[in-house]
Amino acid sequence: MRCAERTGRIQALLRRKKIDGLLVSQPENRRYLSGYSALDHGIGESSGCLLIPARGEPRLLTDFRFKLQAEAEADSLSVVLYPKGLPALLKEMLPDLKIRTLGFESEYTLYSFAEKLKVLADKIGVRLVPTTGLVEMLRLIKDENEIERIRAAVALNEQVFAEVYRSLAPGRTEREIALLIESTMRRMGAQSPSFETIVAAGSNSALPHAVPGPVIIEQHRPLMIDMGLILDGYCSDMTRTFVLGAPDDRYLEIHRLVRRAQLAALAAIREGVTAAAVDKIARDIIAEAGHGPAFGHSLGHGVGLAVHEEPRLSARNGKKLRAGMVVTVEPGIYIPGWGGVRLENMVVVREDGCELLNNNTTGLDL
Amino acid sequence: MRCAERTGRIQALLRRKKIDGLLVSQPENRRYLSGYSALDHGIGESSGCLLIPARGEPRLLTDFRFKLQAEAEADSLSVVLYPKGLPALLKEMLPDLKIRTLGFESEYTLYSFAEKLKVLADKIGVRLVPTTGLVEMLRLIKDENEIERIRAAVALNEQVFAEVYRSLAPGRTEREIALLIESTMRRMGAQSPSFETIVAAGSNSALPHAVPGPVIIEQHRPLMIDMGLILDGYCSDMTRTFVLGAPDDRYLEIHRLVRRAQLAALAAIREGVTAAAVDKIARDIIAEAGHGPAFGHSLGHGVGLAVHEEPRLSARNGKKLRAGMVVTVEPGIYIPGWGGVRLENMVVVREDGCELLNNNTTGLDL
Repeated sequence: MRCAERTGRIQALLRRKKIDGLLVSQPENRRYLSGYSALDHGIGESSGCLLIPARGEPRLLTDFRFKLQAEAEADSLSVVLYPKGLPALLKEMLPDLKIRTLGFESEYTLYSFAEKLKVLADKIGVRLVPTTGLVEMLRLIKDENEIERIRAAVALNEQVFAEVYRSLAPGRTEREIALLIESTMRRMGAQSPSFETIVAAGSNSALPHAVPGPVIIEQHRPLMIDMGLILDGYCSDMTRTFVLGAPDDRYLEIHRLVRRAQLAALAAIREGVTAAAVDKIARDIIAEAGHGPAFGHSLGHGVGLAVHEEPRLSARNGKKLRAGMVVTVEPGIYIPGWGGVRLENMVVVREDGCELLNNNTTGLDL
Repeated sequence: MRCAERTGRIQALLRRKKIDGLLVSQPENRRYLSGYSALDHGIGESSGCLLIPARGEPRLLTDFRFKLQAEAEADSLSVVLYPKGLPALLKEMLPDLKIRTLGFESEYTLYSFAEKLKVLADKIGVRLVPTTGLVEMLRLIKDENEIERIRAAVALNEQVFAEVYRSLAPGRTEREIALLIESTMRRMGAQSPSFETIVAAGSNSALPHAVPGPVIIEQHRPLMIDMGLILDGYCSDMTRTFVLGAPDDRYLEIHRLVRRAQLAALAAIREGVTAAAVDKIARDIIAEAGHGPAFGHSLGHGVGLAVHEEPRLSARNGKKLRAGMVVTVEPGIYIPGWGGVRLENMVVVREDGCELLNNNTTGLDL
């Protein structure tokens, strides 16, 4: 699906909702609809936004710094600069385009900026409409071209992991390995990590979001690596937990329990099953073994242009999975003082099951 | 200044403003007041927030994933988890703490989240107050301990640049060099880059925010490197532009013009001068040489826990600089099709001038 077709769908949606124009500020949404790939340096420092009228041509609004990139990447759109800031430009542009009702993305707009927009909108008689998830709803279902790009990102992730795995040795630190992973992924062609790489050794692996530090990797202790990369705009996300040297019985028990929960969830995923039901299948297995409270996060999340996106595989999401969604399946057990095990793969939801994008082994399967 | 003292100042401010409590969600503000260093994976995925009552002990509110890190880093605060989300926790906690007026950071709160807060606040009779810059105002002026840490970050930045400079050679690509810079900085002890490293060769250097790509570095053409790192929480930010081999006359002319603008601005910085006046000094020099429109961004910005913070050195900021502020001074000239030159150093504003944190040369000075 090309940018123009996606934009056309959004425009049809706007017309149904009686919104004359939509301001798209969320970076992945921007990219999805225009090809413009600039990131924001935090939400407070925007690289621009799309103004999509319900009818007619969208514009890409940005500032001086991004002009050439915007023109090169969003080559079918006209690029308009806002030397005096976005509100000042909108004040001129909205009346010209006869936009009287303007939608904005409430999940990627700061409260303070919305207040500024309101002041401007009141002055020119424009009604503001907070929207949620209009573009994200399209992004939920990946077309085969997108799936192919995600598949390539996951394949590269596996290659990077295999390469780094060969260099692992007791005595090296978490930080060294995290650095090695991030430099290896870039050397092998990734644009960047899709999130800060987690390397957690020993009892640090009990922190689901551990920050790699000077901790030394020891034999026979859990080692958790959670890594993702961006290739051609699309993300991967993968977690492996293992031990260097022989695992002890406790490690093996926890690892196999997590793997069992993961495999059961994978077996259940298909179009039509609810996200909550899949989460429950994995959660019940861990709970029945007495580790329920140690699995404190949800089972997974969507992945695409963003590494964390809808749908969430959580107890709170009663919506049905649909073919073309791409999600992680990542149960975990975290035991303070001892460590943790999390195993994370990515799959494409299909009509009759799911397509596993990762290699189907954790090295320690039963 | 310790976290407790900083928090005390915020509490005094809250009492003056008749606000019973403040929710601090901005990651650097959180860290500044508590020591808790977790980052957010985007504003939509918070690692927690501080609830600072106008009187009494602050709490650190977070979720399961960050519990151990929060307890270890913010060791003087009580850490409270929100398994059902922040609004549900606040619904219980605000009445307990007798908070009837709750401030939130409007410049780091999504519109959609503020709407959720409003629903909750209405239910329990709490009045919401959007705030701007309360903690940022304290962060504006760095104490000598912070300046020492920034000095160390800048010194490491210079060392990393010197190390990488030795490996530069025609035929290598922008991406390779960007990767080398980021891996070298981590190897030499930095926590991470403070922003995505810019390496822009040849005409790409005309893009102030170029993304490093497969472009090959050629002799005699501009090469712009804009790099920053985080050390011990504090950021550096530095830009060097140069050529490999002999520069031609045009390059030398542009480079020396930018350097002249930079030196003039540096000479003008001291407590009491306005940010706009400093910007104008550099801008006038570039404009008088006929390149005014080619300097399309502001002269500089504050640096501290965040790589871009207040004060902005821009034509629109009429506020006076104060001793203890740390800012970049980075004039640039960008000529589409040819390339650009930007030179960026960091300084501490002092009562009687400024303290340059970088080495005082660009290699091509007059």
